[in-house]
Amino acid sequence: MLEAIKEAKKAYNKNEVPVGCVIVYNGKILSKAHNLNITLNDPTAHAEILAIKKASKKINNYRLNDCELYVTLEPCPMCAGAIVNARIKKVFYAIEDPKAGSCKSVLNIVNNNKLNHQAEIYGGICKKEAKNLLKRFFERLRNQRG
Amino acid sequence: MLEAIKEAKKAYNKNEVPVGCVIVYNGKILSKAHNLNITLNDPTAHAEILAIKKASKKINNYRLNDCELYVTLEPCPMCAGAIVNARIKKVFYAIEDPKAGSCKSVLNIVNNNKLNHQAEIYGGICKKEAKNLLKRFFERLRNQRG
Repeated sequence: MLEAIKEAKKAYNKNEVPVGCVIVYNGKILSKAHNLNITLNDPTAHAEILAIKKASKKINNYRLNDCELYVTLEPCPMCAGAIVNARIKKVFYAIEDPKAGSCKSVLNIVNNNKLNHQAEIYGGICKKEAKNLLKRFFERLRNQRG
Repeated sequence: MLEAIKEAKKAYNKNEVPVGCVIVYNGKILSKAHNLNITLNDPTAHAEILAIKKASKKINNYRLNDCELYVTLEPCPMCAGAIVNARIKKVFYAIEDPKAGSCKSVLNIVNNNKLNHQAEIYGGICKKEAKNLLKRFFERLRNQRG
């Protein structure tokens, strides 16, 4: 998760919402990414989507069976759906997202028996670091808007 | 929707699940795409995601306000989440997906008051053509597998 937080800091430095994601297979990092919505003009460019794309390319497989995904913010519906489509085994997230969180906060997509894959969910990892970064980001945003 | 079906046929010809998507703004087509999961080794490469990315690049904006999305199959959770993130106004789909449909069949993500954007949903457009294509695809798959 500390690597995911490093990624989130990269997003922070680019004025992007500071969310970072890392995908791990067999104890090794397959891919790392951070939010790039504004930089890329792309509503799909969340950290999780970018990390899933990179990891799939790396192993030449559109299924990420047995992979673990670490993300600093609870995934939104889009990213939660991508996690299901990619068949990721375990999802670790730092802080909950009361507005769009789709592990439990608003919807449950990541571990939903109605869908054809369920990932294990572990929340609250390195909560403090991830929260501080998001807090600083929104404070800066408010100051910029003056 | 006929343009979306043309896109779905392109996917069919590449041995991809035949789903096509078109995004329209002010009566003009902004982008077209079809499923490319296997071709690109990418679990996120559904027709809707690819069409949203192209449309956003085209207008240099990560929000697709006032756009309409036409897709031959009811969006999955990932694509439904992307539609919400992109702030698409109206979603037209041909056939329902009882396994992952996220307009109404399994979940409702596209028009959900708990999320920060709701798109209008219109289902059942050009149902027959889209259904035939999917049926032929799965028949061919079964025959190939012997």
